[in-house]
Amino acid sequence: MKGKPQYTLADLIAGLDVSLQGDPNCLITGVATIQDAEAGHVSFLTNSLYRKYLATTRASAVILSGKDAEHCGVNAIISPNPYYTYAKIAGYFEQADARKPGIHPSAVLGENVKIDPTARIAANCVIGNDVSIAAHAEIGAGSILGDHVSVGESAKLDAHVTIYHHVTIGKRTCIASGVVIGSDGFGFANQKGVWHKVPQLGSVEIGDDVDIGANTSIDRGAIENTIIRNGVKLDNQIQIGHNVVIGENTIIAGCAGIAGSTVIGKNCMIGGRTNIIGHITICDNAMITATTGVEKSITEPGMYSSGVVGAVPTLEFKKNNVRFHQLGKLVERVRTLEKILKKEEKE
Amino acid sequence: MKGKPQYTLADLIAGLDVSLQGDPNCLITGVATIQDAEAGHVSFLTNSLYRKYLATTRASAVILSGKDAEHCGVNAIISPNPYYTYAKIAGYFEQADARKPGIHPSAVLGENVKIDPTARIAANCVIGNDVSIAAHAEIGAGSILGDHVSVGESAKLDAHVTIYHHVTIGKRTCIASGVVIGSDGFGFANQKGVWHKVPQLGSVEIGDDVDIGANTSIDRGAIENTIIRNGVKLDNQIQIGHNVVIGENTIIAGCAGIAGSTVIGKNCMIGGRTNIIGHITICDNAMITATTGVEKSITEPGMYSSGVVGAVPTLEFKKNNVRFHQLGKLVERVRTLEKILKKEEKE
Amino acid sequence: MKGKPQYTLADLIAGLDVSLQGDPNCLITGVATIQDAEAGHVSFLTNSLYRKYLATTRASAVILSGKDAEHCGVNAIISPNPYYTYAKIAGYFEQADARKPGIHPSAVLGENVKIDPTARIAANCVIGNDVSIAAHAEIGAGSILGDHVSVGESAKLDAHVTIYHHVTIGKRTCIASGVVIGSDGFGFANQKGVWHKVPQLGSVEIGDDVDIGANTSIDRGAIENTIIRNGVKLDNQIQIGHNVVIGENTIIAGCAGIAGSTVIGKNCMIGGRTNIIGHITICDNAMITATTGVEKSITEPGMYSSGVVGAVPTLEFKKNNVRFHQLGKLVERVRTLEKILKKEEKE
Repeated sequence: MKGKPQYTLADLIAGLDVSLQGDPNCLITGVATIQDAEAGHVSFLTNSLYRKYLATTRASAVILSGKDAEHCGVNAIISPNPYYTYAKIAGYFEQADARKPGIHPSAVLGENVKIDPTARIAANCVIGNDVSIAAHAEIGAGSILGDHVSVGESAKLDAHVTIYHHVTIGKRTCIASGVVIGSDGFGFANQKGVWHKVPQLGSVEIGDDVDIGANTSIDRGAIENTIIRNGVKLDNQIQIGHNVVIGENTIIAGCAGIAGSTVIGKNCMIGGRTNIIGHITICDNAMITATTGVEKSITEPGMYSSGVVGAVPTLEFKKNNVRFHQLGKLVERVRTLEKILKKEEKE
Repeated sequence: MKGKPQYTLADLIAGLDVSLQGDPNCLITGVATIQDAEAGHVSFLTNSLYRKYLATTRASAVILSGKDAEHCGVNAIISPNPYYTYAKIAGYFEQADARKPGIHPSAVLGENVKIDPTARIAANCVIGNDVSIAAHAEIGAGSILGDHVSVGESAKLDAHVTIYHHVTIGKRTCIASGVVIGSDGFGFANQKGVWHKVPQLGSVEIGDDVDIGANTSIDRGAIENTIIRNGVKLDNQIQIGHNVVIGENTIIAGCAGIAGSTVIGKNCMIGGRTNIIGHITICDNAMITATTGVEKSITEPGMYSSGVVGAVPTLEFKKNNVRFHQLGKLVERVRTLEKILKKEEKE
Repeated sequence: MKGKPQYTLADLIAGLDVSLQGDPNCLITGVATIQDAEAGHVSFLTNSLYRKYLATTRASAVILSGKDAEHCGVNAIISPNPYYTYAKIAGYFEQADARKPGIHPSAVLGENVKIDPTARIAANCVIGNDVSIAAHAEIGAGSILGDHVSVGESAKLDAHVTIYHHVTIGKRTCIASGVVIGSDGFGFANQKGVWHKVPQLGSVEIGDDVDIGANTSIDRGAIENTIIRNGVKLDNQIQIGHNVVIGENTIIAGCAGIAGSTVIGKNCMIGGRTNIIGHITICDNAMITATTGVEKSITEPGMYSSGVVGAVPTLEFKKNNVRFHQLGKLVERVRTLEKILKKEEKE
């Protein structure tokens, strides 16, 4: 067991587009929130609600914007984008499983697999035939790759990932446990009351720098491929139907569901539990708030929402529901009033 | 590596209830959409929106209805149910993992297991005691079967499927990766503020010709069994509570949730993200649109929906929400107007 | 194969706070619902809807309250909390996989693991470095534990559970198949349109006597830990974001989602498919009905709900949706009527 990591501020900011106000030799042993930090910690200030802690923080250094720096009594790492700078610095303090390159003897390999010697295949993996795994890629314990799968350079699959045949995974892409990629899309033809499976002949293409959260599932295409483009970030428990296309750098929060053949643009931000029906198009730069249901294409960038929100005491909720279901009657009552008044006016 | 499959039209339609207008010896090498097809492809026309592509398609053959056939300039496979015919023909072009019968040496078998010699147990499976696996069944890599499980003829479990003890799985049933069947139902008795687990003594019965999508979970029953009847089709990430019964040929789209003890009839169509509460009954032939919440029994066939839908710009959404929560005041204002007018009338 | 278990009523009630009206030597061979019970079964009555079956039940004994006991024609187990008593008695009839202590030879163990000799490590488990597993704990087949994980006494992980590095699991905690604990929280910093991962440096603490249902996922914290306190019960397919804290004895039904940094109090009851946004607080003893969306903190105990519920025929649903989206116009019409009447009054 090695000791805790320890870096000077000069080490931590090397190569970053930041300036330091304070002592470059100050030793940092970890990160903490601005309110909970102790000596040796580096913290960050990105949300104005936390500015009040700046005067009293015990952190040894704080990452912040130029305009906050003048109020900072400790070492200040001044950044045009403090949260990004924090992401880079926090990377020095990440702990993870020990990972050595090489193929664990318990792994089961198919025929004609090409595994780069710098790649890691962990215990109990099952790798199909004609699979290629590029340099520095990691396949976590118990993960299963079907035939003809290809995994890009430095991609990282955690434990218990399932990749069906012919799926391609880009460089530096990270996939969490429980993810299933390439299962059959949901297609059935009804013949005389019985559903018959429609073969799903496409596969799935996952781009570079994609992140996919735990227990998310992405179905293979019916004819063409399902496609997740470079830089897409998917949270946990998301369901992606067959032939969906998700554009570059789009980010989707947990429990969202995208039904088959829908095409989502670039740089979209899609909130948790959002539901998007099939066969529609979402343009680039659309922002969709959490729990929204999208039933038709969105063609203009902007922020979109649906439904009725706001948790209230259940009694009030019940009254509101009665009123909602009686809206037709209310409209009728207003119409009657309008008629009476119109009649009165005429008289 | 074998070459691409190639069939004559005569081969592809053998045994199907279709007629051919054109050349039975035309060679087909794959399927494609009507708009993207190239020479050698067979395509299909089932949606009138795509009829415009029929005149110009480069497909070598198109599967279509009799009334569309007269406008078809290429080989026509005329079918009373073109999508079903497509499903059958597409099956010739399906690629899949190489699968040889037999028990992989890395599989761990319990005592008293009965595995048909034509069945396949893939790498790293764990099979409990007293399990029976019928002819031509396939258990995918890393799948785990508890004690006393039985798997029917030609059933196909993909990789990473988990089946708890005493679950039975019917013939030709297909189960995708990440599926969990037979986990304990959610039952707890509260004693002095603390929740105590109620033992879940039932199991799960899965019928014949059932399809279950990735990461779906089906709990075991509390006393009786949870039952999924023949021909049911379940998409990905569906949650089925204990003692649910789902009737024959009912189809349920992704992310739906069915709470405990609810009984769903035959031939129902249930949309994605639908939520059905516990202890109710849904009659045969009910159709429930996506994202609907069902809080009481449905006793008449028909199409049902709930909630407020329609994504709009967030500002408009916020105004609508204020109006919704002020519905009580609006009703009051209308009532006041009615009283005034009634008084005026009397005067 | 052993014969079916069989107990006298005296055996079954030993140690419970109940009284018996009837024959303590009556033999019981199983449990059943009050309407379906046969001779040899013990049943229970907790829901008044089922009281009608009490007169005619064929059960050999019924667990019920004192006030129901006088109408009971068979042996009566009289309890102040019949459902809790049922939970205890049903435990005698639970069947499960055969489980012997010890480490299966196919399990792969890291360095410096401490496994109590009474613990059980099933086939194909992968256990990381520096893991500790306490007495009588069970790790189900194919489960994977990262480095520095600790599992408490008598904890029970089913098959295919994934636990990331540094997660701690309390005593007697039960985790179902497909659960993922400790995957990275969803944190990304945007720099010039590209999302950069924010390292997730915290872990997850799971308390004692927690239950976690199939395919549920719990992310590790960004800086501090995500915390699930003692006695919490989580159903299937729940998503818990990073840095969430869930208080003691809170129970959450299936498909709920709790976004990052939200703190939930003790003894809360949270319905299925509930969605709780991030960075808010739910007080102790709050009850939230199924499918509710919670967008701001709840500070008073009570029952809360949101949205519009009630499945209706789709045609009616469509009309209601049009009316909802025209609420602004309706309010305007009422305002016009009010102005006219006000003017009339003045005249």
